[in-house]
Amino acid sequence: MAIVISHITHLECPRCHRKYSADALSTYCVCGSPLFAKYDTTQAREDVEKGQFPSQVNSMWRYSQLMPVKSPLHVISLGEGWTPMLTPRRLGKHLGLKMLRIKDESQNPTASFKDRGLCTAVSKHIELGVNEFALPSAGNAAVSMSAYCAAAGAKATIFMPADTPRPFFDECRLFGAETISVEGDISDAGREMNKMNGDWTVLSTTKEPYRVEGKKTLGFEICEQSGWRVPDIVICPTGGGTAVIGIWKAFDELEALGLIGRERPRMFAAQSGGCAPIVHAFEKGLDTIEPWMNGRTQALGLRVPSPFAGRLILQALRRSGGGAVAVADQDIVEIKSMVGKMEGMNICPESAVAIAGLRNLLESGKIDYDEDVVLLNTGNGSRYTNLRGSTQDTTTIDSQ
Amino acid sequence: MAIVISHITHLECPRCHRKYSADALSTYCVCGSPLFAKYDTTQAREDVEKGQFPSQVNSMWRYSQLMPVKSPLHVISLGEGWTPMLTPRRLGKHLGLKMLRIKDESQNPTASFKDRGLCTAVSKHIELGVNEFALPSAGNAAVSMSAYCAAAGAKATIFMPADTPRPFFDECRLFGAETISVEGDISDAGREMNKMNGDWTVLSTTKEPYRVEGKKTLGFEICEQSGWRVPDIVICPTGGGTAVIGIWKAFDELEALGLIGRERPRMFAAQSGGCAPIVHAFEKGLDTIEPWMNGRTQALGLRVPSPFAGRLILQALRRSGGGAVAVADQDIVEIKSMVGKMEGMNICPESAVAIAGLRNLLESGKIDYDEDVVLLNTGNGSRYTNLRGSTQDTTTIDSQ
Repeated sequence: MAIVISHITHLECPRCHRKYSADALSTYCVCGSPLFAKYDTTQAREDVEKGQFPSQVNSMWRYSQLMPVKSPLHVISLGEGWTPMLTPRRLGKHLGLKMLRIKDESQNPTASFKDRGLCTAVSKHIELGVNEFALPSAGNAAVSMSAYCAAAGAKATIFMPADTPRPFFDECRLFGAETISVEGDISDAGREMNKMNGDWTVLSTTKEPYRVEGKKTLGFEICEQSGWRVPDIVICPTGGGTAVIGIWKAFDELEALGLIGRERPRMFAAQSGGCAPIVHAFEKGLDTIEPWMNGRTQALGLRVPSPFAGRLILQALRRSGGGAVAVADQDIVEIKSMVGKMEGMNICPESAVAIAGLRNLLESGKIDYDEDVVLLNTGNGSRYTNLRGSTQDTTTIDSQ
Repeated sequence: MAIVISHITHLECPRCHRKYSADALSTYCVCGSPLFAKYDTTQAREDVEKGQFPSQVNSMWRYSQLMPVKSPLHVISLGEGWTPMLTPRRLGKHLGLKMLRIKDESQNPTASFKDRGLCTAVSKHIELGVNEFALPSAGNAAVSMSAYCAAAGAKATIFMPADTPRPFFDECRLFGAETISVEGDISDAGREMNKMNGDWTVLSTTKEPYRVEGKKTLGFEICEQSGWRVPDIVICPTGGGTAVIGIWKAFDELEALGLIGRERPRMFAAQSGGCAPIVHAFEKGLDTIEPWMNGRTQALGLRVPSPFAGRLILQALRRSGGGAVAVADQDIVEIKSMVGKMEGMNICPESAVAIAGLRNLLESGKIDYDEDVVLLNTGNGSRYTNLRGSTQDTTTIDSQ
């Protein structure tokens, strides 16, 4: 770990502009909006001009100037971020795209993009003196929080829907977390967590200010790995929406640093038609999101009925000139299998939704075939035993 | 992918020094030894001095001058290598070590260190015109070869012991490989493959010259990530031994390039007491390895009765001043669980063997507590359902 010099100054509400200290525990603004961390970008710009940013650090902590943790001693790192940007040529050709790239977030410590946010949130809260955490999760975030809590020597309690596949529970428990299984979806899990009202700090998506700071490094890396160019299109499978908000925030910070100009990619959120509250709100022209009752999808990370940061997600999609797309759940297995055979990648069902969404957007002319598209593979597919097929086509030989 | 300029000149037998072309298909030497790739290190040294090596490439292809693939068009990359070097402080403290680092190979595309070798071997063979591959494997190598064959559009046929856990078969099939299940161990799987005698090129460990070239990048990275310092100790869980041979080869090449001097780490191989042919041969002072019949271990990757490169493995361990250590299989689950709770890492059973081995070597005084130790976590533990415990301690709440 290189020396961390954070230029964080305070927290600020992006809606009503109230300010809060970054040295005290915070949740969200009194007006109900998530809070954003703010930095002294003049100082950070001087660092960049002196060539101190980005450093040679082989993780997202290369961007430590724009990260909220002040002391390197508090960074609990498992090697998160600085993941590869792949060029899936056969898939790109199949879709007819001139330039498709996949940011492969399955190559994170616990095999999903959740590591960026939870590493940052756990580390910052350790710095603020917290040593006990809770989280409602659809799966990947629970595994990630459990891992960082283990590495930090902190206590983790996670609440997951009872139908979350067993490998998610197993892995949380391997990391020493207390696991609680709740009938229902992630909102029900959150309600049970609140009822239990433990002596913990809750790291729910966008209900504390720091997970989004970790996720924004995706935006930094997408630009840096493109030679500080901004792609035409970014597509995120979207549940709670931290990636959309984080990546969008990243561009403003990179512009303040002089690394990019005013150009922005068009941002698209992909959801399953079985739980598509963002697509619904986007298409209806709403400013906030109406809860999607009894959502059903095999892409468990997208089963988020009412994302807390709905207003910010919709703003980012609209201001970018992008949009939101829903796809049929039955496309998931087909796409996952196609990408496996074509590219040797075991993508998660959420990313299959994003690829199906990209196909729809291309077919409907909302994205042009000559645009430069970056798509997130948000995690590895192997824990999703809900999608596992049969193994009947393995040949068996008895050599005895 | 940056421009690849390989300085490969030819293949050479490290035992009898016969030379072979690197532009034709090769297996092993007529004398029975594996073959090594040789490079024009004078040319490569000029590149390094001009600052062209290592480049900013975020994968093991940063070392393309010392890799065998000549054209960048033939590199089938999924973002392999350039994995994090972690500092597991709580584990290190628990063992009493002043400086323990873990090279976390679970953060490779298919979650194991096999990606380095199979990426290189598949890519080089694609360059040589091959389009169909076969492999006997204990699991991780099969998944890896299947992934790279998929990305290359090549056909893969894999032979695995029938008791290999189902997730390994599932993942190979997701990548479109033909999977054949054989009663017995990896040697039996190899025999069945040979009997079937398909129209394929076999990528068995050290029976072709290029997997070791991928694995050697581990040695490059260990040194580069230590600021071109050589650690005191390197510990590898060892089955077929490609990592030991590859890392050892890397130091000679780095010395030829002027990046390190004559210093070398002491290299240790860790095996399970249930299948410890290398430990047996090392302790008996043998030059070659006697097959270990009916080996049994939960660390499936270490169930290799008779590694083909036995002579080279034993040479590397002896010349380095290192050794070989066997541990009890029952330590695997305890260590895996301890590392999970202490560091938030889901290590594979093979790496648990390496940690148990390190503990033994410290206790017996063969490694000093103030030595700088690098240990390989060769892969992620999640596919090893043979080790899965019960989930009885998850609390269940019905929120309805």
